[in-house]
This record gives sequence, C-alpha cells and structure tokens, in this order.
Amino acid sequence: MPSELVELKGHIIDSLSLPRVLDSILAQGGEFEILEMTVGKTRDDQSRALIRIQAPNDDKLNAVLAYIEQEGANRLEQQDAELVPAPKDGVFPEHFYCTTNLPTSVKVSGKWIPVDRVEMDCGIVIENGQARTTPMNDVRAGQMVVVGHDGIKVETPERRESVGTFEFMTSTVSSEKPKALMVAEVARQIRDTKKAGKKVLLVGGPAIVHAGAGEAVARMIRDGWIDVIFAGNALATHDIESALYGTALGVYIEEGKPAPHGHENHLRAINEIRRVGSIAEAVKQGVLTKGIMYEAVKAGVSYVLAGSIRDDGPLPDVITDVMEAQDAMRAQLSEVGMALMVATTLHSVATGNLLPASVEVVCVDINTAVVTKLADRGTHQAVGVVTDAALFMSELADELKEAGPWRAS
Amino acid sequence: MPSELVELKGHIIDSLSLPRVLDSILAQGGEFEILEMTVGKTRDDQSRALIRIQAPNDDKLNAVLAYIEQEGANRLEQQDAELVPAPKDGVFPEHFYCTTNLPTSVKVSGKWIPVDRVEMDCGIVIENGQARTTPMNDVRAGQMVVVGHDGIKVETPERRESVGTFEFMTSTVSSEKPKALMVAEVARQIRDTKKAGKKVLLVGGPAIVHAGAGEAVARMIRDGWIDVIFAGNALATHDIESALYGTALGVYIEEGKPAPHGHENHLRAINEIRRVGSIAEAVKQGVLTKGIMYEAVKAGVSYVLAGSIRDDGPLPDVITDVMEAQDAMRAQLSEVGMALMVATTLHSVATGNLLPASVEVVCVDINTAVVTKLADRGTHQAVGVVTDAALFMSELADELKEAGPWRAS
Amino acid sequence: MPSELVELKGHIIDSLSLPRVLDSILAQGGEFEILEMTVGKTRDDQSRALIRIQAPNDDKLNAVLAYIEQEGANRLEQQDAELVPAPKDGVFPEHFYCTTNLPTSVKVSGKWIPVDRVEMDCGIVIENGQARTTPMNDVRAGQMVVVGHDGIKVETPERRESVGTFEFMTSTVSSEKPKALMVAEVARQIRDTKKAGKKVLLVGGPAIVHAGAGEAVARMIRDGWIDVIFAGNALATHDIESALYGTALGVYIEEGKPAPHGHENHLRAINEIRRVGSIAEAVKQGVLTKGIMYEAVKAGVSYVLAGSIRDDGPLPDVITDVMEAQDAMRAQLSEVGMALMVATTLHSVATGNLLPASVEVVCVDINTAVVTKLADRGTHQAVGVVTDAALFMSELADELKEAGPWRAS
Amino acid sequence: MPSELVELKGHIIDSLSLPRVLDSILAQGGEFEILEMTVGKTRDDQSRALIRIQAPNDDKLNAVLAYIEQEGANRLEQQDAELVPAPKDGVFPEHFYCTTNLPTSVKVSGKWIPVDRVEMDCGIVIENGQARTTPMNDVRAGQMVVVGHDGIKVETPERRESVGTFEFMTSTVSSEKPKALMVAEVARQIRDTKKAGKKVLLVGGPAIVHAGAGEAVARMIRDGWIDVIFAGNALATHDIESALYGTALGVYIEEGKPAPHGHENHLRAINEIRRVGSIAEAVKQGVLTKGIMYEAVKAGVSYVLAGSIRDDGPLPDVITDVMEAQDAMRAQLSEVGMALMVATTLHSVATGNLLPASVEVVCVDINTAVVTKLADRGTHQAVGVVTDAALFMSELADELKEAGPWRAS
Repeated sequence: MPSELVELKGHIIDSLSLPRVLDSILAQGGEFEILEMTVGKTRDDQSRALIRIQAPNDDKLNAVLAYIEQEGANRLEQQDAELVPAPKDGVFPEHFYCTTNLPTSVKVSGKWIPVDRVEMDCGIVIENGQARTTPMNDVRAGQMVVVGHDGIKVETPERRESVGTFEFMTSTVSSEKPKALMVAEVARQIRDTKKAGKKVLLVGGPAIVHAGAGEAVARMIRDGWIDVIFAGNALATHDIESALYGTALGVYIEEGKPAPHGHENHLRAINEIRRVGSIAEAVKQGVLTKGIMYEAVKAGVSYVLAGSIRDDGPLPDVITDVMEAQDAMRAQLSEVGMALMVATTLHSVATGNLLPASVEVVCVDINTAVVTKLADRGTHQAVGVVTDAALFMSELADELKEAGPWRAS
Repeated sequence: MPSELVELKGHIIDSLSLPRVLDSILAQGGEFEILEMTVGKTRDDQSRALIRIQAPNDDKLNAVLAYIEQEGANRLEQQDAELVPAPKDGVFPEHFYCTTNLPTSVKVSGKWIPVDRVEMDCGIVIENGQARTTPMNDVRAGQMVVVGHDGIKVETPERRESVGTFEFMTSTVSSEKPKALMVAEVARQIRDTKKAGKKVLLVGGPAIVHAGAGEAVARMIRDGWIDVIFAGNALATHDIESALYGTALGVYIEEGKPAPHGHENHLRAINEIRRVGSIAEAVKQGVLTKGIMYEAVKAGVSYVLAGSIRDDGPLPDVITDVMEAQDAMRAQLSEVGMALMVATTLHSVATGNLLPASVEVVCVDINTAVVTKLADRGTHQAVGVVTDAALFMSELADELKEAGPWRAS
Repeated sequence: MPSELVELKGHIIDSLSLPRVLDSILAQGGEFEILEMTVGKTRDDQSRALIRIQAPNDDKLNAVLAYIEQEGANRLEQQDAELVPAPKDGVFPEHFYCTTNLPTSVKVSGKWIPVDRVEMDCGIVIENGQARTTPMNDVRAGQMVVVGHDGIKVETPERRESVGTFEFMTSTVSSEKPKALMVAEVARQIRDTKKAGKKVLLVGGPAIVHAGAGEAVARMIRDGWIDVIFAGNALATHDIESALYGTALGVYIEEGKPAPHGHENHLRAINEIRRVGSIAEAVKQGVLTKGIMYEAVKAGVSYVLAGSIRDDGPLPDVITDVMEAQDAMRAQLSEVGMALMVATTLHSVATGNLLPASVEVVCVDINTAVVTKLADRGTHQAVGVVTDAALFMSELADELKEAGPWRAS
Repeated sequence: MPSELVELKGHIIDSLSLPRVLDSILAQGGEFEILEMTVGKTRDDQSRALIRIQAPNDDKLNAVLAYIEQEGANRLEQQDAELVPAPKDGVFPEHFYCTTNLPTSVKVSGKWIPVDRVEMDCGIVIENGQARTTPMNDVRAGQMVVVGHDGIKVETPERRESVGTFEFMTSTVSSEKPKALMVAEVARQIRDTKKAGKKVLLVGGPAIVHAGAGEAVARMIRDGWIDVIFAGNALATHDIESALYGTALGVYIEEGKPAPHGHENHLRAINEIRRVGSIAEAVKQGVLTKGIMYEAVKAGVSYVLAGSIRDDGPLPDVITDVMEAQDAMRAQLSEVGMALMVATTLHSVATGNLLPASVEVVCVDINTAVVTKLADRGTHQAVGVVTDAALFMSELADELKEAGPWRAS
C-alpha cells in the first residue's frame, strides 16, 4: 500500500483540523498511524502531529492528500513546486494547483515564498520571485502557474476564539447531496441493523400518507423491515382514511381531487374505528384491509400511538395521557438499533429524548430545523436528510424491495 | 344531470366566498348558472347570488354541496335536519354532520335554531330544543346527533377588514400534496404545451446536477421535451464536471464519496472548456460526450447561460454582462408557453420579470420562499411545488418517458 | 370627493380581479359604488362591472387607479395617451408609464393599438404607429414614450383553469414587510380587542423565553394586555427556570453563557415546583417571584398548560391527558376576540382547531410553514408574520407600553 | 484558582470529545493543562488525555466539570456517589444527578455499577445494589437517588463510523439563542475590528430597506462603523426609492400602505439617478439627501454595486459585468477584518468566495440555508444568526450608538 508522511501543526485540536484529517483518511478507505504527537499543554501552546497515511492505491492516497491539505496537513518532505506556463489568456495549464482560503506558501528554488492575496479557487502565478493567487479569468498566456501538489504548504486554520455566545455545534445535514445515494445509504443501515439482530424503529408523521408514500411504507412493514412504529393519531387516521375511502385529508390520493364530503372523511374514519373498538379489531373484522396500520397488525409490529392536543377523535388506540405514552414508548426501545424519523418534529424530538446515544438516528424532513432541534436537545447522533419525505420513502421502499423481503433472507 | 339551487348571501365577493364556490363547482366537474345576482353597491351592502349547480351524478353534486357549504352556500329549500341517536359513548352515528368553524343553524321542527359553540370538526347534538357542537370524544350514547346535510345553514365568512398592512395574496404552494400527482400534472402541462405548438422553457439551478437528477434532465432534452434552457455558470459547470469526471462539486455522483482532488474538478472542467473555446466546440471535438449541455447542443436546444458574481471561471459561453444576458433571455421568449423553474431563486425571479402573465409557470423548490418571492414580484401565475427538486425531476423524466419521446409523436 | 368611473370586464370573479379591486379601493381609504354588474351565467360567459370610485383626494384616487389597473380595471372614458421623448439614452421621461405583465393597449390618435412584447416594469415606446415595451436600459434619446395613465387599457388576467391538483389558496404571509409596522398593527388589534370588551389569548412556545422575550411578555401580562394563555410544559418550565436560575435551557439569558450544571436547570425548576405542589403555590410561598407564569398568577390570567410526549417532568400544572387539555382550552374561549400565536406549531394548530372563524388570529413565527399549516387545516383567518418571535414580542411590548397599561385606561 | 484532574478516554479525537472539552473549559473562563496524552496510533486504538482544569472559582469549575462530563470527561479520583431519598412521589431530592444519553456507572460502596436503561434527563435510583435511570414522574418517595456529581462515570461517545455519504460538518447556526446577546456579541466584534485598525465590510440585501432597517444602517454608516459596502442594484434602489418617495417596493415604509403608483417608484428612482448620472452626483446636486447610499457617499465609504440578471434599470453605478464586479470587490478586501452579511444569499456567497479564512464572517438571515451554503462552499468560518435581519440591524445600530460614533472615540 502506498503511503506518505504528513505533518500537522498549530491549534490542530481545537480548530478541529486533526479530527477532520483523520476522518478524511478513513472516508477514502485509507488508514493512519500517528507516529508522533505533542499536544499543547495550555491554550496558547501549539500542537503537532506526524501522521503516516496509507491508502489502497495512489489515486486514493492523492485524494486524501489533496483533501487534508485544506486542513493544513502538509507532506513532510517537499520538492520545488512545478511551474508550467498558461497556454492561453484566461486558461490555466492542466493540473494547475487550486487554492484554498488559507495562508499558503510555495517552494521555489528551494525557498518557501508566501502567496500574496489569499483567495479560494484560484491558481498561483509566480512572477519575479513573487507568488500570488490569480483568478482563472485574469491569467495571461505564458505566465508561470503552479501545477500539481508538490512544493505547497498550507497553514492550519486558526484556533477559533472561545465561542461564548455562539455555539460549537456539529451536525450532519444537507439538502445538496445526491439523493439516490442517501436512499442507498439508509437502506444499507436498515439491512445492517436487521442483520445485527437489532430492531428498526419508524417514527412517522402524517405527511407520509397524504403526500403519497403510505403504500410504500406499508410494503416495508409487510417485508419485515420495520419492527416498531411510534406515531400519533394523525398518521394512523390518515392511513385508515386512505384505506377506507381512498382519501387523505379528504383528497383522493390517486387523483388529487377533493372527494364528496371529503374533508369529513378523517372524522368518519376515526368514528368507524371507535365503533368497532380498536385498529386490531377492525383488521380482525375485515373493516380495515390494507395500509400501514393493517400491515403492522398483520405483521405483529408493535406500535405506540401517542396523543397530542391537536388530535381529532382520537382513535381508540391512541394513548391520550402523554406520560403513559412515554412509558409505552420506553417499553419498546430495548432492542432498537436504528431509528428512522420521518416528517414529524413532535414525535422525533420525543423519541430522541428517550434514546441512548448509541442508537443510530436518521431524520428525514423537508425542513432543516427538525434535525437542528434534535441536536440542540441532545440527540447529537442524528443524521439529517433534507428532502421530500414521501418521495424519499417511496424510493427507500423500492431500494429495500430489490433484495427481497427481510424475513425471506 | 342532477342539479340543486343554492343561495349565497353576505359579503360574498370581498370575502372571496363567491369565487371559491364557483371554483369548487368546476373542480368537481360540475357546471353553474347564476340565476340571480344582486351586488352590494357600497362596502356595507351585502350581496346575494342564486346559483343553479349541475353535476354529472349525485355523488359529485353532494361533494360540491358539502364543499361549498363551508363557504356559506346553502340549499335554498331545506327540510328538517335528520337526527339519529349516538350508538355508543364517544361514537357518532354514521353520516353525522361534521361542523365548520362558521356560525351555523339547524332546522328542527320547521324552525332554524342557532348552534351553540362554533368549532370545526365536531358533531351537532340536539337536546331540549338546543343545538350545540360536541367533540366526538364527548358524545354520550343515545344523544340525538344531526346526520346528513339537510336542514343546515352556514353563514358566509365575514368580510375581512380592509387589509392595510397585511397583504392580500393568493398563492398556490403546498408541501402536503401527493407528489406523484404533481409529477403527473406537470407532465401533462408539458405535453399540452408541446401539443399546442408552444415551447417549454427550463430554468434550472445546479442542485439538479449535484443532487443527482442530471441524467434525468439530459434524457428529457434528448426526448424533445425542453426547447429552451436558462441557467447560470454553475448548472453548466456541474453538468460538465459530472460528464468529464463523474463528480459534482468534487463528489462522485454515483458513490457520494469525494474524488481525488475532487473539490478542484469544477475549476478543471471550466478550464477545459475555456481551452477548447466553447461548449459546442467541446461537443464537436468529442471532449464532452454526455449530460445536459451535451444533449442541448445535440438537440439544437437554445440556452442562455447568464453570469453572476459568484461564478468561478466562468465558462466561455456565459454572458458576463447581465444586461446583455437579459436581452439574450428576452430573445428566446416569443414562443414559450410554459416555464418550469427548478431549484434556482436568482434565475427564476429574473425570468419571472420577463414573462407575460399568460405563460404558465411551475416552480419546483424545496424552499417555499422562492414561490412567495415570484408572486411578491408580480409573477402571480406561478404555481409552487415544494419538494426535493432532484427527486421530482427524476420522476418527471420517468413519467414523460412512458409515452415515448416527443419528437416521435 | 374626487371620483372616477372604471370598467372591469372578463372572468372578473373567478380570476379574483373584482375582489382585489374592491379590496384595493378600501385599503386606500376610498369608497366604491357598483353601478352596473352583469355576471356571466356559466363558466364561459364573461362578467362586467361598472364601478364608481371615490377617494379622499386626487392622490389617493390616482393610487387606487394605478393599483387596480394591474387587475384590468380601466377608466371608462379615455383620452389619447400622452407621449414625451426620452431625454437621454437609457433614461425615460419623468412620469413614464410603467408596464404590467398583462396584455395592454395604448390609445394613439383616437385608436387603441396593442403593445408588443408583454413584460413588466418597462416603458412603452411608440414608433411608426407601433407600440412596444422597452426596458429602461434600451430606450434611446428622443424615442416617444408613454407618460401618465391616460389612454392605457390593460386586460383582466385570464380565468385560471379549474385548479384540480393545485390548490386554490389565499393566505397572508410575508417576510418582506416593514416589521415596525406589523408591530404597530398587531398592537392596534390588541387594543381594539380590549376596547371591544373581548379577551386576548396568547398561544406561546418556549422560544419566547430562551430567545430572550420572557421579560417583555411578563410585562404585557402585568399591564393587562393578555387575558388567557395556552402553552405547554416547555414555555412554563423555561420561564420558571429563568426566574429561579437566570437560565433557559441551561444558558444564562443575560450573558448567553452556559451556567454551572445549567443543562440540568430545567429539570431542577420542574422538580422544585413539583415539590411545592403547583405554580400558584410557588408564587404564594415566594418561591417564584417573577416571569410570565408569576405575572399570570398575580394578574389572575387563566392559563392552560397542555401536555405533550416530549415533556420532561412535567410541571404539576400540566394537564397530561390531551383530551382533558382540549376541554380546558375550550372552556376559556368564550370571550376571546383575538389570538396571538407565537413560536409554536403544536399549540397554534390545536387552538386553531377550536376557534370560530370570527376570532382574529395573528401567527408570529420565523417559519412560514406554521401559517400555511393553520390555513391548510381550516383556520383561514390566520394572518402570518414571518419574523423572529422574540424580537417581535419585545417590540410589541414596547409599543403597547407607550400608551400605559390597559387597566389604567 | 481551584483545579481538578480529569481523564478522557476512548476515541476522543474523532468523536470530537477532546475539542469539545477544551472549548468548554475556555468558554467558562477556565484554563487547561494537558498533563498526559497518548494518542491511538490507528483507527482502532483508543486515546487518553489527562487534563488539569483551573477555573476562577468553584462555581465556574463545577460548571466546567458538569458540562464536560457529558463528553465523557470524568474526575480522576472519585468517592462514592451520594444517595438521598426522594422526598415525595414524583419529586427528586434537591441536587439530584441528571443523566445524559451515554452509558454511565455509579460508584456505590467502592464499586462501579453500570446504570441500567440509558436515557437523558432522568435521575438515577439505586435499589438492591442495582442502578437505573428513572424519569421524574416515576420516582417514589423514599427511593434512594444519586445527588451531586461525585461517583459518576460517563463513557465517551463512540467514534462515528467513517462518514461516507453523510458529511462531517461543523457549523454555528441557531435560531434559539437569546437575540439580544447576539446583537451585543456582533457589536463587540465590530468594535474590536475597528480598534484593531481593520475594516468592517457590510454585504447587504434589499430586505434591509423594505423591512424597515434602512435608517438604522444609514446611522451605522454615519457613525463610522461600516467601511465598505457590497450590494446589488436592489439594495441601492430600494434605499434611494425610500429616500426620494418614502416607499420601498411601492409601499410607504412608515405606514405600510401602497403609495399612489407606488409599484412604479423603484423604476422612477432608478430613472432619476440615471438622469443625473450617478449616485454621488445625485448627492452633490441635492437630489439624494438621506439614506444608506447618501451616508456612504458623505462618509467616503467605498461601495461596490454588482449587477445581476434580475436587475431593473439598473442604477448607473451598478457594474453590469460580473467579472469586473468581482475584481472591484477584490480591490476592496485588503484591510477587511470582519464581514457582516445581511439578508442576501447571492452577495454573501460571492463575497465568501473572495475572503481569506482569517476574516471573521457573521451571516444574519431569517433562513438557515444561507449559512449552510456559505459553509458548503468553503467559508467555514461563517457564524450564522438566524433571525429577522431588519429587527437585528435596528437593534445592532442602537447597541453601537450607545457608546457614541466610532470616529469620536
């Protein structure tokens, strides 16, 4: 395995440089060995780490080196930077070095010279023994431009001031990642959890149903991917309304048009289950024949429907006392290895309060604020996927389906 | 066709009751005839409309009647309300009347009696000649409950105070509708626009590519569904980066992992096209062989890439002068019948400024604010779909594909 | 009072043109008289209204006319448009006519000529008997430009297709209005409600306290502006934590720094009140000596603290059964004339479910989605103020304070 | 100064425990000395740090200890935990130990026993030699409950899996902090920047003006707090419209009502400045006599108005070529020590691209996404304040004003 020695110097712990560097190495499939480490004793002392990086191949190694360079991790021994003339006005030579927004030096003729004007995403032009960042649009044909990653030294970001008012926070949220990948990643986590003999907990809000993913979630339950459900009156009511009348909040799910008297359907659905006595009884009597709650009853999946003050009805299965509901939720948590929280702030935060930090939490919502709230309230392990919950759940069900149902495997 | 006479009385124009009623009738496939109409001459006078409603069948007619009742449209001639005892504690009789939050009266023994305690989503209990709203949970077995829609009169909502500070606004945005339906609806609009001999304009942001829908949009272009593209340097760069290196913003789109030196790839992609001279030239020379811009060049689709101050590079095709870019956009608008705006505030608002009100506008974004901004700036015809743009575009491409490419038809 | 006759023709009811026009007139302090009105009998027939507008002065009248022109309301009798040459390249003459995005005609030499290229925010240039919209940047010195509002006819927006999938919605939300005005407007509504002998209901979330507006709200209560409070365990706990320890969620409110063992303070606050028995008892015993709950007890303000599954503790005053909590809320609503909902989705939607449509609702939240949810669930009267709730409440308390406490007046 | 020895063991670097611990110590005004440190050489090895903590007083020291205990930093030598009986059902003894969501042990009779059922915000009950977390509501009178922080050991959070698809991100955004504090903190940063002889850069969007903070920002400029302004056509136009006509986007800022022909005022404002030739010329000729741009001209503050494709007009001072605009922005950056970015995504991201990582960035916006975008694009130093920009700027101007204008000091 190819390897390289890098040095990281400065306030590498409190600027988070060291953790970021180690994380990047692992993320690329590399390994690290910390050969030397001296840690600054007090807030003003600098630290230094000497790290050997190994990667499966040169490409991966270069990837790691390029990435960690942005954190100020520089190769220990460096030759002069390679210089190549710009081929045209406004065009850099191939493999031009691309700048960060950190102070940088270039090794030219054996000497380190500082680069003037710190700016990210530029090239470095060397002229008259001076180095300076140059935007692509400003380079002129023939100017000598640094290419490759040799002979470059980037300073570690400064230690941030003690943060005081502004909070030090790590979160993992983004609306800008490839969504298909996130679906695949969450599917993998679900499979891994099941294989490890742990339970998967679904914490869900009603948008799952009225935005059209009820059928997909029902399928996931039927196929054995979900072991426990935490939800409220609304999810179950919308699901049952949809099973009984084809509508959610009075709108035909397959046509998107209001049904006759449709706005009343959620109340009629509740009234019907109250008449029969319970959801399980409705399944038994053949009143309820499909949907999320139907599949949950059929598959013996445990569910806790916790009451809230905005509930209509509610369904007879809803625990209207919130302290009893908390206890019912606690009773289901012992074997849970992963919680998938979808489109519900209330139930997600409530569940986060009850979960050990060791349970993996994935939170899917169109609104970034839900994940931030989870983290603010101590569920730091929550990973957020900012996307349309219904589209996400439909694709997740498809992804899981490809390998066949869980019980079959 | 079954029909019914309804009366609407009060401040039916400025409370928007009348427009809502007419809209509901049409939305259900019904027809209306306004038999009489007296309009209040001044702000204090009430208006009155007598409307005959026709619908294809009794079910639809009942749907219309139930819906418009919420706006205070009452059947002209009414019998006594039907009363049925509650079958159990906490359970209403079937077909119980479900309340609105408007003042309501019930006809009992030929007399209209007002219902006490206005509250939505309750039943109405009649006891000792008194009527009052009762939540489902509070009804006791044997209490007489109004069922059906006979003998019910709901008052028109009051005229709102002259709005002053708070704006009078109509918009059409929701994150809570079935998404599959919206996909189908937008696909239908695209097909209708093409059939009408009009052009479809795509206004797109870079999230289309880095969230993974680049291939889907490329396919839509290849199949002839898009005639004009307005975008910026970022969309084109991400698309070309993805075609050349398989990454967007340095992340492998198919694996979601950072590529070696990946953060530099967008600059390298720009540099490469600058070297060659233009996107079209890159296609001609075989440098660019797939993606959105490739398909656009191949299909002869017009594109305007408008510059912005956050651009790196930019690509040689980008019009860096914003007034020139506006003129280039104007020049493409003459035949446009529909604009699909996806994941870009800047280009959406800019395009909205240039479009006649007669061009249909669909705006897809994870953020409600984009549509609000469009409407605030005068593009009142914009319809917003609040969802994940990449997932939406992937499903839209699939939906359009089912019927085969446009050119083939 | 100056007056003017205008005509509105087309699908003026279902395009909402007529309601918008009447609303604009009133918003400017004008009055209207509908002289003639013919309403299209069926969906295909056009309607026509002839309206006399009166306004307090010429300026107001012109304001109305300019505004409603955008809805297609044109003055009945019109002279030729006035034409003035552009004084410079890129500069329009003063008082140039500013276009809408609707089809427009100009009266030149007694004939109406259509304006080419519909685009908003341009001028109209007349050349060779042709009229066309021209962006400011493109006008050349000497070109004849329409000035003033004479001789201009704008078409009514087309009737929208029956909306089907996409919802017909009116809401009143904006994050782009002058905030000081909104504060003044809400203060005025509160005063008017009190003067009318009605109660003001505050529905509040914990952000009021931890974002720093607890003191302001306490003052509003002390001064008699709030009659009823609906909240949850969190608001009361944060408030009491802040009164007992100076912290909210463990952070010193006045310094923004974490307190010793601060994250535990909310639990200690709850424990303390549980020990004493109730909030009122804590006030009586001198344990609780300031804050929102203290002032509420002192002023005899009714409060309902409704439980939720995310509650720690909870406080002994919290009603943990949600159906009981709903009933407790209902019992407080009879005299409520206005509800001010601040920074809580759960309690706002729950309260919205219980309120008659006649109660004014103002909903203050940093997140647009809360108001949309209220409207989606039937509380159409809700007016949304998208802003920072804590800053808003602080300014509202200041605004109300200026006129002295309510009881004093 | 009181001090204490703590030990931190496990994956303390890549779980971010060590940086968080050091940060907490400094945030409380404490100091640390790292006495011993052994760093795991490879990804599987654990690390260990022995840290001496000093704090100004016992209170602060206890605060630090309580806080870092949540990261698994435990006092080296510990006595048995103190046990006190619960005084009542549902009430813990005073100073009860409050749990985290990490695995925990309690020292009882010299032995460490693990606590059953990991859950945050509970107490620990010891019964029959067993320890278990107990929610406040479930404790019974007389049960022995752990109080204080002696005899408690909390495990370090596990190392997170190599993150792969999900990004490792640190950001500093919150909508839930006391806003008055953030105002004070930003004011302090501005003052510190000025005192250090550096420039303060304001990057602003038009919402500053139309939401009512134009006057406040004008005052900040007049008082010497702002040295450079980056904005677009919209900010300057709204400001000038407001100075010339009292409106922004056609709405009277002081009344919130639409002005006569108000929607045209922004075009008229642009036209007027184009007629005169430039903003500076308009100030010179007495056409422009107040507002942000007026004060900027008067105070000799540099401004760059960069064009965008959504611009109307634009003003003659706007640089319509975006590459030229970038260069103009670069030319102003040399002495900038702090950038205050307010209510503009486009200009904030563009400026972030140009700034060295050493320039402090504060980003104020009602939308969390802006700060996330800045960080995603490499401006990691950005600190986000999620609040109403106009209210924030008004309070910031007041805060700065209290100490008098800068030039005077």
